Order: sequence, then structure tokens, then C-alpha cells
Amino acid sequence: MKRTIFFQGIPGAFSHIAAIGYFGRNYTFTGLATFHDIFKEVENGRMVYGVIPVENSLAGSVVENYDLLYSHNVSVTGEYYQPIRHNLLVKKTSQKGESITLDDIHKVYSHPKALEQCVQFFRKYPHISPQAYNDTAEAARYISSAYESNIAAIASREAAELYGLEIIKEAIQDNPNNWTRFLIISSSHRDQDILAHDTMYKCSFMFTLPHKPGSLHSIIGLFANAHLNLSKIESRPIHGTTFEYVFSIDVEFHSHDYLLVRELIHSCEELTNEIKVLGYYRKAHIPRE
Amino acid sequence: MKRTIFFQGIPGAFSHIAAIGYFGRNYTFTGLATFHDIFKEVENGRMVYGVIPVENSLAGSVVENYDLLYSHNVSVTGEYYQPIRHNLLVKKTSQKGESITLDDIHKVYSHPKALEQCVQFFRKYPHISPQAYNDTAEAARYISSAYESNIAAIASREAAELYGLEIIKEAIQDNPNNWTRFLIISSSHRDQDILAHDTMYKCSFMFTLPHKPGSLHSIIGLFANAHLNLSKIESRPIHGTTFEYVFSIDVEFHSHDYLLVRELIHSCEELTNEIKVLGYYRKAHIPRE
Repeated sequence: MKRTIFFQGIPGAFSHIAAIGYFGRNYTFTGLATFHDIFKEVENGRMVYGVIPVENSLAGSVVENYDLLYSHNVSVTGEYYQPIRHNLLVKKTSQKGESITLDDIHKVYSHPKALEQCVQFFRKYPHISPQAYNDTAEAARYISSAYESNIAAIASREAAELYGLEIIKEAIQDNPNNWTRFLIISSSHRDQDILAHDTMYKCSFMFTLPHKPGSLHSIIGLFANAHLNLSKIESRPIHGTTFEYVFSIDVEFHSHDYLLVRELIHSCEELTNEIKVLGYYRKAHIPRE
Repeated sequence: MKRTIFFQGIPGAFSHIAAIGYFGRNYTFTGLATFHDIFKEVENGRMVYGVIPVENSLAGSVVENYDLLYSHNVSVTGEYYQPIRHNLLVKKTSQKGESITLDDIHKVYSHPKALEQCVQFFRKYPHISPQAYNDTAEAARYISSAYESNIAAIASREAAELYGLEIIKEAIQDNPNNWTRFLIISSSHRDQDILAHDTMYKCSFMFTLPHKPGSLHSIIGLFANAHLNLSKIESRPIHGTTFEYVFSIDVEFHSHDYLLVRELIHSCEELTNEIKVLGYYRKAHIPRE
């Protein structure tokens, strides 16, 4: 039986593309309505994985997924950077059987974030008006089934293929450095991590601190003194309290430092109110334009 | 002549409400299409202010505005926390002059983020389908001018008043701890800051660091040794490079420590590649449920 990989959205969504990018095609990919649904499936399932977005280079962290990582019994087992390319998709032919040009289009459907990221396109073609839709892939599916042919969607190349659409303009986003970082999660009932030899890893962990000067400095000092690099650090007030903060840190390390990192995180315990290791996983690279 | 306060969106948007919350009503409030438009107006204008969202308790940082703060010649002069309450708005009467009930409604328009934050409402009323719209206030304006009366919008109380709508269900968001932090910006051609006596302030600054263990630790150490609290810290890889990070820090201080904070930030200069002080401003409080 094939293992199942869960993602949020419908086929052709960037989460689906990232899941295929990480795992390859030899799995069953299942789209769910919400991130919370993914965590429930992964927490209770065996041999299943979830792929969740945690950060976009233009839009920042997906706070909701950090909250879910903190509160659910799952482990992070990998990361993946997905470049985000927005393409303009239309039907292959109009009702009359003719091919559709930019001049024909008067409405473009997509997620408001995607529309916002293509401002220059809409400035250049003022006869085209942006129309909000729940999701990029859903917008593609919608125009493929609509009666009109003078409408377009902004979505991925994969959505164009899946819904039988044609790309009439590629990569119309303003900023080419647009990527989303995904984490791969699995049920945390797993064996001890076994790390590949001579490879760069990351450990992600979250903790809460009293609102007190110096406590963060002590924690960062543990890693600085060991010459370990922090590739992410973020603080956020905890919902409903102004006196406590939740921190999220990624530390990079070479596999031969694995036991050292475990020890350092163990030492953090007495400096924090509560600490949770999300997982140890192989470091991926940010795509470069 | 009244001073002008710029915000993004149309009247009734949460940015507009935050602007009134901070300044009071005795100003001219002008909505602009994009955040970038606000920065251009403020950078070139005299006696004008901008109000921009930088962080939401559920959705995280607004990375775009941090990028704009870093690249534009503006100063932060204040902060404001706006509670986000989503209400269900309908026309005051149907075409037949009858009042509209929940049973009549079959579609609800709003920004996808707002729709997502009201999942429990849509689960409870499965006959109602969520419909994406560009903005909460625009959704309210749309239903006020639509012919049908069996549609609703999710938006603010102020949008209901502005567009002559009625709230048939209050505060339908899942999480009551939903707030957005706004910064107030002005042109940076200003006099030296004069701080109120015996008051808590914040200083926001951003800097870039080489991807090198220990440099962040040294900076945080400067503030920890002076017993100053950091109320925000965030790192992000710089667009287009995997080797440099941009950091954003807020340090809290009592007004009598103003000169000390200036000195510490001055000492950061030799530890960073580039540093920019966004401003010194009075600390505001996070609303509690």
C-alpha cells in the first residue's frame, strides 16, 4: 500500500507541488480543507506524512502552523523550499474555437495574495480587473469549468496541466524571489533519529520565556559559544497574555554535532518555561533566482 | 488646514479604524490602494502620517511593510494595537421591506483571511457558503449596493455604520485574541526626539548580519547586560541571497534610559553590515480579551 501524503488545498495548489517536489510521485497525495485537518491525520496515522507551509519570502511566517506544531504530537522530518511562480492561465480555445489572447481577457481570478504579488501586470493591462478567489488552484479549476472564455486565473504550471488550461503569460509576479518554505511532519511515535554522515542538518525548537531581560541572551549564548548558526529566530506574544513570549528557533549543525545539539537543547530546559523540540531534519537550500 | 492620515484600503477597513483609534477624528483620513503608496506620500509630504499594519496575532508579521520601512526615508512615531472583531453584516431590509435573518442568507463575502478566521461559524451554518472578496470593507460596500438581500459580509462595526448595514451576528471569529499591531509613520525630516518623562518607550531597528555564528549573540548581549527587554525579534533571509539575514528588533525602555539606548544602538554599528533605526516611540498595550 502506498503511503499517503496530506496537503492543504486541491490538486495543483502550491502545497501539492511542494509535496511532489519533496517525495516524488510514487505516493498517494490527498488534499484536505484545513491545516488542522492535516495535523489530526498525521497525529493519529501511521506511515502518513503532512506537508505544511511555514514561511514565505514575501509574506512572512505562517503563525497558525507554528501554533499547530507547538500543540500537536507530531515531528518535523524534513524541509522543502518551493519557488512560487504565478502564471496567467486561460482556456485552450474560446467558444468559437479560437485561441485566447491578452486583449480578450477582462477578469483574472486568484487568491488576493497572488493578485497583490502581480501589481505590475495589472498596471500594464488596465483593461483587466483582478477578482479575488479562495485559492489559486481553485481559481484555475473554476475558469476551466466556466462558460465564458474571456476570463483567466493566476496559478501554477501544474494547475494549468491538471485543469487543461493554457499558460499565455509566464511568471507574472513582481518579485522573482518568491518562495515558500514547507515542513514535512509525521507522527512523533518514531525511533531515535539516525543522521546521515557528513551532512548539514537543522533542529527546530520552540519555547516560552518569562518576559525578563537576559533569558533569551543566555539561550542564544549556548549556541554561539558552540559556534552553531541560528538560521531562524522569531518571537511572538502568547495569545491572551502580555507577559509571556513564544520563541521559534532553527539551529543549523553538521551531523557530527548531533549529540552536542541535543545536549545544548537539554540545557535550555532550565532557562525556559516550556520547550518543545519539533524535530531534527536534513537542511534544504533556498532557491536562488 | 487639517493634517492628513493615510491608510491602505477604503473607509471602514481595519487600517482606517486603527488610524481613528490612534489619532482621534479631527484629521483628514485618506485611503490609498497600496502600502507603497502610503510610503511615497509620507516620504514626500510634510505634516502627514501613515498608519501601516506590521503584525497580526494570528497571521504573523507583514513582511512587506518591514521591507518598505527598511528602504524608505520615514520614521516610526507611534504604535497602536487594534482588536479585530468580525461581524456578520446584512442589509437593513430585504426588497420586500422585511428584516433579514440568518436563514435567508446563502452567501457571505469577505477577505479570505477573515473567512478562514470564522470556520466555526460556517460549520454551524452549512447552508451558508463563504465567498472571497478583496477586502472586508469592500465586501460590506458591495453587499450594500447589490440587488440581492440574501447575501452578507464579514466586516467591522464601522463598515456596517458607513455602508448603512445591520450587524445580525457579532464577533463571529473563532479566536477572540485577534489583534493587529499598527505603526504610525511620518517623514523622517524631524527634530530630535523629545521623550515624555517617566514613560515606557520602544525603539525599533533593523539590521543585516553576515551568516556567522555569534554576531547576533553579541548584539542581544548589549541589551541583556543593560537589563533591557526585547519585545520582538525576527530574522529573515534577504531576498536573493542565502548568506545574509535581515533582523528586526524592538527594545523596550523607560524614558530615563533614552540616551543609553541610543548609545547601545550606536555600538551595534560595528557588529552589523548595515543598521537602520526606525524610530523611538511610546509603547502601547496589547488588548486583552
